[in-house]
Amino acid sequence: MSVVRPFAPGGDYRWKDVELLRYKTDGSVPFKDVTRQVLFDDPSIAAQLRYFEVSPGGYSTLERHEHAHAVLILRGRGRVLVGSEVHAVGQNDLVSIPSLTWHQFRPAAGESLGFLCMVNSERDRPQLPSAEDLAGLRRDPKIAAFLDA
Amino acid sequence: MSVVRPFAPGGDYRWKDVELLRYKTDGSVPFKDVTRQVLFDDPSIAAQLRYFEVSPGGYSTLERHEHAHAVLILRGRGRVLVGSEVHAVGQNDLVSIPSLTWHQFRPAAGESLGFLCMVNSERDRPQLPSAEDLAGLRRDPKIAAFLDA
Repeated sequence: MSVVRPFAPGGDYRWKDVELLRYKTDGSVPFKDVTRQVLFDDPSIAAQLRYFEVSPGGYSTLERHEHAHAVLILRGRGRVLVGSEVHAVGQNDLVSIPSLTWHQFRPAAGESLGFLCMVNSERDRPQLPSAEDLAGLRRDPKIAAFLDA
Repeated sequence: MSVVRPFAPGGDYRWKDVELLRYKTDGSVPFKDVTRQVLFDDPSIAAQLRYFEVSPGGYSTLERHEHAHAVLILRGRGRVLVGSEVHAVGQNDLVSIPSLTWHQFRPAAGESLGFLCMVNSERDRPQLPSAEDLAGLRRDPKIAAFLDA
């Protein structure tokens, strides 16, 4: 791997020698228009640094897991659901996703929302909300409004 | 700790609830005009994410260590010495510092250079170059020019 991998060699939020992983929306998981790029996955470092980008109108997976997420917003503005709260976020803001806390990122209207996410290399698989979990979340009108945006 | 810690609550590259550590140049270590902010130090994540900023005319410590660094340039432009090579870097570029490799960051003239650095929470202490190490590095004219810039 090169010591320096330049940003945006062909324009847009891409990096040289970093693969773009585009998730297919197949209806089985609750996300839309999200890409992932693994920026650092050095076996000598116990964590990975990934870049996720959600296109206008999209949203990240609504999920929770044992492992924590350490997030820095790199591009755009949006909102994030963390537990029972919805927070506005913008460029360079820091977001801490605690263990076993439902979370989802959504860009502001007409914007892309891109964020760095540091995470343990060894971690548990995300859990998706059951119908019961979703109904519980939706009982809070502000969460229902967020999920229906 | 708050779930969201906003960027630049008082302007400049600062974050809410993140302490600014300013190194004093006392002549005993080879760095100048560097600040550090630890953005994430979650005990459940095996790595930290720090933000370093080097003011115009300054430079980071010339050092090496067993642990690797995973760096993303967040602000400005500059140059980085990694081993025997000097690389130009700019915003959002990725820099991998391998194990036991001499490295130093220097901003471009008149600019501040800020970068994120992901690193194992448990790591060895940096080694500083001996007079002999420095003489060895300086034998390469491009490294000597970099160090004297």
